[in-house]
Amino acid sequence: MPANAFYAQSGGVTAVINASAAGVIETARRHPGKIGKVFAGRDGIIGALNEDLIDTSRESASAIAALVRTPGGAFGSCRYKLKGIDEHRAQYTRLVDVFRAHDIRYFFYNGGNDSADTCLKMAQVSSSMGYPLACVQVPKTIDNDLAGTDNCPGFGSVAKYVATSMREAAFDVASMASNSTRVFVLEVMGRHAGWITAAVGLADDAQHPLPLVLLFPEVPFDEARVLARVDHLVKTRGYCCIGVSEGLRDAGGRFLSESGLRDSFGNAQLGGAGQQVAHLVRERLGHKYHFALADYLQRAARHIASKTDVEQAYAVGRAAVQAALRGESGVMVAIERISDQPYRWSLGLVPLSRVANREHMLPRGFISRDRFGITARARAYLQPLIRGEAGLKFSNGLPAYVRLKNVSIKKKLAPFEG
Amino acid sequence: MPANAFYAQSGGVTAVINASAAGVIETARRHPGKIGKVFAGRDGIIGALNEDLIDTSRESASAIAALVRTPGGAFGSCRYKLKGIDEHRAQYTRLVDVFRAHDIRYFFYNGGNDSADTCLKMAQVSSSMGYPLACVQVPKTIDNDLAGTDNCPGFGSVAKYVATSMREAAFDVASMASNSTRVFVLEVMGRHAGWITAAVGLADDAQHPLPLVLLFPEVPFDEARVLARVDHLVKTRGYCCIGVSEGLRDAGGRFLSESGLRDSFGNAQLGGAGQQVAHLVRERLGHKYHFALADYLQRAARHIASKTDVEQAYAVGRAAVQAALRGESGVMVAIERISDQPYRWSLGLVPLSRVANREHMLPRGFISRDRFGITARARAYLQPLIRGEAGLKFSNGLPAYVRLKNVSIKKKLAPFEG
Repeated sequence: MPANAFYAQSGGVTAVINASAAGVIETARRHPGKIGKVFAGRDGIIGALNEDLIDTSRESASAIAALVRTPGGAFGSCRYKLKGIDEHRAQYTRLVDVFRAHDIRYFFYNGGNDSADTCLKMAQVSSSMGYPLACVQVPKTIDNDLAGTDNCPGFGSVAKYVATSMREAAFDVASMASNSTRVFVLEVMGRHAGWITAAVGLADDAQHPLPLVLLFPEVPFDEARVLARVDHLVKTRGYCCIGVSEGLRDAGGRFLSESGLRDSFGNAQLGGAGQQVAHLVRERLGHKYHFALADYLQRAARHIASKTDVEQAYAVGRAAVQAALRGESGVMVAIERISDQPYRWSLGLVPLSRVANREHMLPRGFISRDRFGITARARAYLQPLIRGEAGLKFSNGLPAYVRLKNVSIKKKLAPFEG
Repeated sequence: MPANAFYAQSGGVTAVINASAAGVIETARRHPGKIGKVFAGRDGIIGALNEDLIDTSRESASAIAALVRTPGGAFGSCRYKLKGIDEHRAQYTRLVDVFRAHDIRYFFYNGGNDSADTCLKMAQVSSSMGYPLACVQVPKTIDNDLAGTDNCPGFGSVAKYVATSMREAAFDVASMASNSTRVFVLEVMGRHAGWITAAVGLADDAQHPLPLVLLFPEVPFDEARVLARVDHLVKTRGYCCIGVSEGLRDAGGRFLSESGLRDSFGNAQLGGAGQQVAHLVRERLGHKYHFALADYLQRAARHIASKTDVEQAYAVGRAAVQAALRGESGVMVAIERISDQPYRWSLGLVPLSRVANREHMLPRGFISRDRFGITARARAYLQPLIRGEAGLKFSNGLPAYVRLKNVSIKKKLAPFEG
């Protein structure tokens, strides 16, 4: 009997992480002589610790194929970073025990920076324990801040969503601005790096010129300067649209979302950075505003996913299995850009030591000189990532998504007292 | 020379109001012997008062056709209700003066309840002044609360957007719920009537069963009851999604958005009803939540518009012109439902006196007995309205929308000192 594989989803989910799952599972199924079953961790790595393993062989081929067009994490995810090896060796040996009990020799971990750290440690521990385990990371994060890869699956679809949403809202505000709403604020995700904020900038192009202001997490919030710019745009263009990063900070490095306003109990005010900025626009400038907080909608919006993103998400899952079958371990599949236009890319492998605990920050050269917009270089980088529309099935007017059966296999070990 | 027509957009815009504009303009262009030019009011009726008339004959056939797939109001809109005739007769006589100066004999007003009132008064005043003016309303409102029509263009696309968004977010939350976010709150528009809130209920169906709670503006907010239901769903299903109307009120009839929390200056807290509910979930139940406020995104989301809605929006514009050419006046084009399944509809005319200053409220029979969901009757009504996907053009990965030239004609009158 060929050895089995383990696959888990980690951290915040995306509109396309399930496409990576499909890439892993379908590729494994095409190598029945080399890989037995693919077991998925229920709720991520926690499922492995608890020996709660989902038997994906119970899912039909059509159900797995439907994962390509289904958002969220089909097996559940978790925000759970394994502790250091010295600090908590028991967790790692437990994982090896579980894998050994179920003859798992392949470890595919679908996540971001923290996952790279875990995946690397798993490779090290299993090796030091003399248990052969091919550990390959499948990259995923909406934030695009994963090191070692040109871009990260999950980001392109969020980018497409926020740029589409801002463009559409701008058309709305432009209609109302002469006598009603003049400023529209959209808060987007990306607490540490401004990739998603930059993507909002794509809403504005030669055919759709928008009076747009971007507030990056990389640029300390300068209230007077921002308000002057907004007011100038309202006065010269009639209205203004503001894309605000949830991670916007003041000059002292404090998140706007944690500053200033408090509720009646003295607790920090409910609103985040976008709402703070919108509030200032009204209080200081007197302009009527509307404010939107896309929150999970932006990272779940499979209905407006980027075809490039879906294809890459699938491809990195497939490549992870192929790499493991070639005997690779301790690596992440990485997307390498060959050219911007036409956009060409290929896949490679990068050592996890070059991924873990690093961040791929937005280059300074992507932010325009006035710090309120993006440069041509940023556009050249971003545009290919949002290109193409990825097919959906509709049923009764709504996207039809798949829910798997998610049947656990029988446990063989005693519960983990970790 | 045949007489000219006037068209104006009124009130909050929608994803499909421009499809109605295209229906009016293209139909008028097909009757060159009967209608000369279509002039559009810049920023709605204000444009007529100011004699700021956009010459739509300057726009190419392809630009007008592209309106069908462009959100917002292409000529600008306004929230401006004309005063009563006795109170401000000068406004009405000014309008007649402007129309006479530009030989306008057709008045197409694209709006909701307030517009019906204005359109009716225009018909009455012009008639009493002996100025023949065919006044026909083209229905529009995302809120679906317009009387005299089975449904209203603009609503179906919002309905499709909110149901899609809630379904997608639910798939996201379901993945995270075992150890992170357990409650997702989406606030939707519809301050007075719960049509949009009801549409969120479509996210949940037999293939996509969701633990969903709807908080209608028609149902006074009962904190203990709502929290008990949410907690029950989290405990039995793992998570809970809540669709909250912006118009949610407490038992005393006070909007939640105006109650309770205050900022550090003692001002009413920034958040609306959805944020209040989310905050309560965390404070009282201890569940981690995520909160989204779609705001303008929901009414501008042409990218996920309902094909039914787009078709109806176009058809009511076309029918308005046809009715005016038949000599009708003081009427609104209305959508009549022939059957739910298969969905069949036709257009009729309804006297404006039966539309103005009335509201089409959500039937009590659409809200489930527990008051947290929708009934089968509601589904039968709502489902046809979100059906079908309306074509888009994409350019560089984003929907390509049209901006018209919007050239004003030369003024002939002295400024209005209204």
